[in-house]
Amino acid sequence: MNDRFLRALGRQPVDRTPVWIMRQAGRYLPEYRATRARAGSFVNLCKTPELACEVTLQPLARYPLDAAILFSDILTIPDAMGLGLSVEEGSGPRLAKPVRTRGAIEKLGVPDAETDLRYVMDAVRLIRRELHGKVPLIGFAGSPWTLACYMIEGEGSSSFARPKALALDDAATMHKLLDIVARSVAAYLAAQAAAGAQALMVFDTWGGLLAPDMFREFSLRYLAQIAQSLQIHNVARHVPLILFSKGANSHLEALADSGCAALGLDWTIALGDARMRVGNRVALQGNLDPAVLHASPDAIRGEVKRALDSFGPHPGHVFNLGHGITPDVDPEKLGVLIEAVHELSAR
Amino acid sequence: MNDRFLRALGRQPVDRTPVWIMRQAGRYLPEYRATRARAGSFVNLCKTPELACEVTLQPLARYPLDAAILFSDILTIPDAMGLGLSVEEGSGPRLAKPVRTRGAIEKLGVPDAETDLRYVMDAVRLIRRELHGKVPLIGFAGSPWTLACYMIEGEGSSSFARPKALALDDAATMHKLLDIVARSVAAYLAAQAAAGAQALMVFDTWGGLLAPDMFREFSLRYLAQIAQSLQIHNVARHVPLILFSKGANSHLEALADSGCAALGLDWTIALGDARMRVGNRVALQGNLDPAVLHASPDAIRGEVKRALDSFGPHPGHVFNLGHGITPDVDPEKLGVLIEAVHELSAR
Repeated sequence: MNDRFLRALGRQPVDRTPVWIMRQAGRYLPEYRATRARAGSFVNLCKTPELACEVTLQPLARYPLDAAILFSDILTIPDAMGLGLSVEEGSGPRLAKPVRTRGAIEKLGVPDAETDLRYVMDAVRLIRRELHGKVPLIGFAGSPWTLACYMIEGEGSSSFARPKALALDDAATMHKLLDIVARSVAAYLAAQAAAGAQALMVFDTWGGLLAPDMFREFSLRYLAQIAQSLQIHNVARHVPLILFSKGANSHLEALADSGCAALGLDWTIALGDARMRVGNRVALQGNLDPAVLHASPDAIRGEVKRALDSFGPHPGHVFNLGHGITPDVDPEKLGVLIEAVHELSAR
Repeated sequence: MNDRFLRALGRQPVDRTPVWIMRQAGRYLPEYRATRARAGSFVNLCKTPELACEVTLQPLARYPLDAAILFSDILTIPDAMGLGLSVEEGSGPRLAKPVRTRGAIEKLGVPDAETDLRYVMDAVRLIRRELHGKVPLIGFAGSPWTLACYMIEGEGSSSFARPKALALDDAATMHKLLDIVARSVAAYLAAQAAAGAQALMVFDTWGGLLAPDMFREFSLRYLAQIAQSLQIHNVARHVPLILFSKGANSHLEALADSGCAALGLDWTIALGDARMRVGNRVALQGNLDPAVLHASPDAIRGEVKRALDSFGPHPGHVFNLGHGITPDVDPEKLGVLIEAVHELSAR
């Protein structure tokens, strides 16, 4: 197996820097759009293991990527809790039954991954089989704070004022919600590992919207709870955990102390600065601005070189974008980026 | 005159922390919505000095604010350059004739503030007259990078991939655009000061979307150019400049060295941490999360206290939100916040 990705997460030497891309199975690929059209809906695509497997493998057929990532959505857990997920093209995800009262929150239970989220576990098993050990498979979940944002708001928001107001007005109720979501995420990730995922990632997409004290209390604390749960249950020893708290670069040291193996980084920090701040505690994954893929091939190579030089000749770097690839990217440009990473990082 | 705001910008002692609110003249106020409806369009509201004056004064009639801010838009400069500004409720601003080629950029000229932007200068003069010296008046402009984003993209964007790609592919052309915009902004701000503005603010709304090297090259450099131009032309001595680069907290030290009097802060950094980092070089303005205004009066007072305590008993703090007040806020909640600032900060 190509184990560059897992070696880099373990901060071991590699022959060249491994690379994968957030949303590498996505709308920028015509073959994805074709499968998505056949699936009828985004949710149906997630819930049909054969189709989820198909789109997971599509970018690997095009590019020499060093990892696959399960095709799924961060809102599978709220959906399994009964909140009713739908995803409209353009307008984003929507939960039909948001939870906004203590009563509604107290009725929530931790989903059983192998029954309530069976389709995800089946997809993991199928993808692992179809990968034939070519590259490792990453499983993932949303962070408790990010899931709570959607569960309370019912949809995306530029400010997530409702969950923030609940956190300020009734912290005890918010903690009740975050605790049940954190336990659900930990169990879900452990089940993905048991089904075959070889690394795990938590996307804290909206952590960076919180003021520092609130970030520590309502996001970081539950990321650490998940990391510790995976350690206690002996998952973390074999299956490294990557935490990605977008827009939360001021909290890197605390995130590195949470018990994870690696941190994802957005593009608003130099890799070298991040490495100096976290030292040898964790590997780092990232962090090119996705907008770079709209520049010329020469500029893309230049920015790849700048990122590799910034990280320097140390172990522990997984190349990625600093956020998901956008639907308007020319797939050939991504090829340029991946080739540049392998070529310019070859030892 | 109530000079708390100007004294705080000069880091002089004050009897209580001054407070004003970004977008304090805005859609959360029913009286604003009424004037806006009479104006017919947002652009017409900006371009009619009597109406701009009316909405500028509205929040001062409701609340004991320590400053007024000119009602206008950051895109008046591109509009005066001939790009054709329109603003649709909901969908945001649009420029009919974006500039995307070197040829188009080379045709741009620096607008003459007193002729091409006469309506802004007339509004400043009228507001100053109508304020009767009650509180100081703040003038403002958008930052060169932020204006360039709109001028190239033609509208808002979550990623501003076009201006970023131009910066990467043809830095010389991007610098040509940024230089002419920076010279236009400096002249515009100097003209606002000459017309009566007693403090000036530059909104670098999209600076935080840039990777660190690009921020320094394409945003910070032109903010410093403006600050230095205002010093050279003897404006800054009497009219303090506030720079607000949203999402760019990792660059605070460099921003503080740009020659401005104060920095605006978003809510993702503790005021005390920011103060320690910039020392006594500049005053600080901010930085409550606007979402706090959706919480209860008790929680609002608690967050005001937390912010005041974080800054500590030092001179040089102007209280504000960390971003504009949102249209869905209950005006009574803003009253609670302003009262709490004055009450809890009284020496």
